[in-house]
Amino acid sequence: MIHLLAKDVASAVKGELLGDGSVAVEGAAGLDEASEKELSFFHNTKYIDALQKTKARVVLIPQQTNGTTLPQGKTLIRVPNPQWAFAQVLGLIDQQRQHHPKGVHPKAHVEPSATIGAGTVVYPGCYIGHNARVGKDCLIYPNVVLREDTEVGDQVIIHAGAVLGADGYGFATLEGRHHKIPQIGRVVIENDVEIGANVTIDRATTGETRVGTGTKIDNLVHIAHNVHIGRDCLIVAQAGLAGSTKVGHRVTLGGQVGIVGHLTIGDGAVIAAQSGIMNDVEPGAVLFGSPARPHKQAMKLQAIYGRLEEIYDAFIQLKKKYL
Amino acid sequence: MIHLLAKDVASAVKGELLGDGSVAVEGAAGLDEASEKELSFFHNTKYIDALQKTKARVVLIPQQTNGTTLPQGKTLIRVPNPQWAFAQVLGLIDQQRQHHPKGVHPKAHVEPSATIGAGTVVYPGCYIGHNARVGKDCLIYPNVVLREDTEVGDQVIIHAGAVLGADGYGFATLEGRHHKIPQIGRVVIENDVEIGANVTIDRATTGETRVGTGTKIDNLVHIAHNVHIGRDCLIVAQAGLAGSTKVGHRVTLGGQVGIVGHLTIGDGAVIAAQSGIMNDVEPGAVLFGSPARPHKQAMKLQAIYGRLEEIYDAFIQLKKKYL
Amino acid sequence: MIHLLAKDVASAVKGELLGDGSVAVEGAAGLDEASEKELSFFHNTKYIDALQKTKARVVLIPQQTNGTTLPQGKTLIRVPNPQWAFAQVLGLIDQQRQHHPKGVHPKAHVEPSATIGAGTVVYPGCYIGHNARVGKDCLIYPNVVLREDTEVGDQVIIHAGAVLGADGYGFATLEGRHHKIPQIGRVVIENDVEIGANVTIDRATTGETRVGTGTKIDNLVHIAHNVHIGRDCLIVAQAGLAGSTKVGHRVTLGGQVGIVGHLTIGDGAVIAAQSGIMNDVEPGAVLFGSPARPHKQAMKLQAIYGRLEEIYDAFIQLKKKYL
Repeated sequence: MIHLLAKDVASAVKGELLGDGSVAVEGAAGLDEASEKELSFFHNTKYIDALQKTKARVVLIPQQTNGTTLPQGKTLIRVPNPQWAFAQVLGLIDQQRQHHPKGVHPKAHVEPSATIGAGTVVYPGCYIGHNARVGKDCLIYPNVVLREDTEVGDQVIIHAGAVLGADGYGFATLEGRHHKIPQIGRVVIENDVEIGANVTIDRATTGETRVGTGTKIDNLVHIAHNVHIGRDCLIVAQAGLAGSTKVGHRVTLGGQVGIVGHLTIGDGAVIAAQSGIMNDVEPGAVLFGSPARPHKQAMKLQAIYGRLEEIYDAFIQLKKKYL
Repeated sequence: MIHLLAKDVASAVKGELLGDGSVAVEGAAGLDEASEKELSFFHNTKYIDALQKTKARVVLIPQQTNGTTLPQGKTLIRVPNPQWAFAQVLGLIDQQRQHHPKGVHPKAHVEPSATIGAGTVVYPGCYIGHNARVGKDCLIYPNVVLREDTEVGDQVIIHAGAVLGADGYGFATLEGRHHKIPQIGRVVIENDVEIGANVTIDRATTGETRVGTGTKIDNLVHIAHNVHIGRDCLIVAQAGLAGSTKVGHRVTLGGQVGIVGHLTIGDGAVIAAQSGIMNDVEPGAVLFGSPARPHKQAMKLQAIYGRLEEIYDAFIQLKKKYL
Repeated sequence: MIHLLAKDVASAVKGELLGDGSVAVEGAAGLDEASEKELSFFHNTKYIDALQKTKARVVLIPQQTNGTTLPQGKTLIRVPNPQWAFAQVLGLIDQQRQHHPKGVHPKAHVEPSATIGAGTVVYPGCYIGHNARVGKDCLIYPNVVLREDTEVGDQVIIHAGAVLGADGYGFATLEGRHHKIPQIGRVVIENDVEIGANVTIDRATTGETRVGTGTKIDNLVHIAHNVHIGRDCLIVAQAGLAGSTKVGHRVTLGGQVGIVGHLTIGDGAVIAAQSGIMNDVEPGAVLFGSPARPHKQAMKLQAIYGRLEEIYDAFIQLKKKYL
C-alpha cells in the first residue's frame, strides 16, 4: 500500500509547497487519469483544461505559471521541471511498491565459479554460468540466462527472459553444409545498462560483444556476436544488429530497425523505426527507410511516391504524343 | 493413445452418421495427409479429387453434396460446417492427448501474495510475482513470467516464455544521459485472451497496459507500456506496438507490423504484414506498406514502382528533346 | 584456463610446423585483436600489414605464400585453408573452455514419458514435456521448453529460452469472435540442427512442423504451425514464417525477413534481409524488398526511386508545356 505525504514529496523534489502538506497520496498518474488519491503534474499550458478538471489532490507545477489560473482546493508543489520531479515521485512510490527478494534467490541456478556483487538481486529461474561476473546493485529478473564468462557491470537491470552469451551465429559452409564455428568469446555489459525482456545478446566468436555504459535496450532486441555498442544509446524494441557492427555513443535505433554486419554507425545517429541499414552511417545522421536514406529526403521521396499514379498517367500521354 | 469412435464423433458434432459407427480413429488430418487410422474433412468441391483419394476412414462432409460422388467404404458424417466440426474433433482429440499437471506445479515460483483461480494450471518454471492475480481455468505454460501486480482474467492461455509486466521503456534524457522513469503501473489481461510464446507485454508507467477480451496474440509480439488493445483483435507474430497506442476492437495486425506510439487504431482496421503505421488509422481501414497507405492504393503504387525503369528511360528522352 | 601447444595445434589441423612447437597459446583472435598469448590466422594478402604487426605468437598461414614476407620470431603453421583450420582451433579451445553439466540437470523438469538420448546435456530450467523425444549428443541450454510430443534428432543444439511445440496460431472466427482450433500436431527437428535463443517453433495443427537436417536458425526467429523447412538452410535472426509454408533445401532467409503462409520457397533461394515474400519463390532466386523482387531489379528500382525528385520536377514542367 502506497502512502506519501505532500510535504514529504515537496521535500524530496526540493519544491515549494502551496497548500496542505499533510494530504496523503496513494499513487500517481497523468492529469486526465489521476484519481482523487493520486498525485499528478502540469508542465505545458496546452494541458490547462486538464489541470482545471483533474481529480488529483496533489499536482506538481512549474515555477513560472504567469497567467495560469491555478486550481483551488488542491495541494500544489512548485518545481523547476515538473516532468523530472514526477519521475522522482514515481521513484518514491516504486520504493514502497517493489518487493525485491534479497540477494540470489534459491530457485536461481548459479555456478560456483560465478561471482555476484553486493546488493544485486537475482530472481528465481535465472541461470548464471561458469565464470560469469555480475557487479553491484543489479536487478536480474526471473528466467534470465547469463551464459559462461558473461560480465555484467554495476547498477545493470536485466529484464525477464533475456539471454546473454548464447553462441554467435557463425558457420563455415563447405560443399553446401554449414559447420559450426565454435564461439569462444564473451559478452560484456558495462555499468548502468538496462536490457529488456526476451532480448538476445550473443557471445563473440573471439573477443567481446560489448554494450556501453548507460545504454538502454528495449524488449526482443537481437544483438549478434562481436557487436560493440557505445555509451548512452537507445535501442528500441525488436531492432536487430548483425555481427561485428560498431555503434557509436548516443545513437538511437528505432523499433524493428535492422542493421547488417560489419558496419560503423557514427555517434549521435538516429535511425527511424523499421529502417534497414546497409552502409556505414555518418555521425549525427538521421535516416529512414529500407534501404535507409536521409530522413528529409526519405519523406520527400515518399510524398512523390504517393503521386506515382498521376505521374504514370502523364507519362503514358507524353510518350504517346511525343516519343 | 487417441481412440475415438465414429458414432461418438457424430454425436459430439451433432452430425448425421452414414456408414459404420463402430469404426475407431486415432487422429485427424487433412485429406491428403490423413492415414487410414485418421479422420478428415471435406468442405469445398475443389478438393473433390483429394476426397476420392484420401486414406482417412472417417470423413466429415457438408449437408449439401449434390452432384459429388461420395467415396465408398468409408464412414461419413454430414454436418452444416465441416471445418467447424473438424475443429471440434480436434478438441476431442486434444482432451485425450493433453496431460496438463493439476494446479500450480511445485517447480513454479508463486509469491505468497499472488492469487490463482480454480482450475488454473501453472507449469514448471513460471514466476508469478507479488500481488499478481490469475483468474479461473487459465493455462500458464512453462517459464512464463508475470511480474508483480499483473492481473489475468479467466480462460486465458499464456504460452511458454511470455513476459508480462516488465518495466516499460521510459527514460528522461538530461544532458545526453538517460535516467530511468520508474514504471509503477501494471498489466491487465481480460478474459479469453491467448498470448503466444516469448511475447512481451510491459507494465504501464502509471495506470494500465490492457488487452481486451477475446484478443489473440501470436509469438514474439511486443506490446509497450500503456498500450490498450480492444476486444477480439488478432495480433500476428513479431508485430510491435509502441507506448500509449490505443487499438480498437476486432483489429487485425499482420506479422512484423510496427506501430509508433500515442496513436489510435480504429475498430475493425486491418494492417497487412510488415506495414509501418505512423498516423492514426480510421475504423475499417485496410492498410499496407511502410509507411502504410490504403491497401488498394499501395498495391497500385507497387505495380507502377515496378515500371520505374521504363518511366525513367522515357523521362530521359523527353527531357533531352523538350526541356 | 586454456593451454594449447603449437605442436599440438599443428598436429590437430594437420599443418606443417615452422618454428618453436613448444610455444603455448591461451586463446585465439583476429590478427589485429590477438594478444601475445593468442593464436591467429592469415588467409588473404590484403591483411599483409596486419600479419606484420600482429602480436599473436602463433599464426596459421596458407600453403602458398609466394612473395609474402613472413614475420620473424613467431611460430607459423602452414595449412591448406587457414580459416577452416582456425575454426578447428576454436573447437580445441572450446573443449577446454566449456564446462557442460552431465546429462539432465536436476533443476530441469522432464516428464517421465519423455526420452533423452545418451550424451545429451539438458541445462537447468528446461521443460521437456510428455512424450517428447530428444536424440543423442544434443545440447539443450537453460530455460528451453520442448512441449509434449516434440521430437529432436541427434547432435542438435537448442539455445536458451527457445520454445518448441507451443500451440499454432489457429482460430475459427464466427460472428467476430475467434475460437481456438486445438493444435494436436507436433514439432520434428532433424539431426544437426542449431536453434537460436528465444526462437519459437509452433506445433502443427495436425501432422508436423519440421526442420530439416543441418539447418541453422538464428535468435528470435518465428516458425509457425505446419511449416516445413528443408536441409542445410540458414534462417537469420528475427525472420518469421507464417503457417504451412514449405521451404526447400539450402535456402537462406536474411534477418527480419517475413514470409506469408502457404507458400513454396524453392531450393537454394536467397532472400535478403527485411524482405517480405508474398508469392512462391523459384529455386535459386535471389530476392529483395517488401514486397520482394529479383535482387538486381530491386537495386535498380531503388536507384531510380532515389531520383524521383528530379523526375517529378521534369514531369511538372513537361505537363505544363505539353499536356
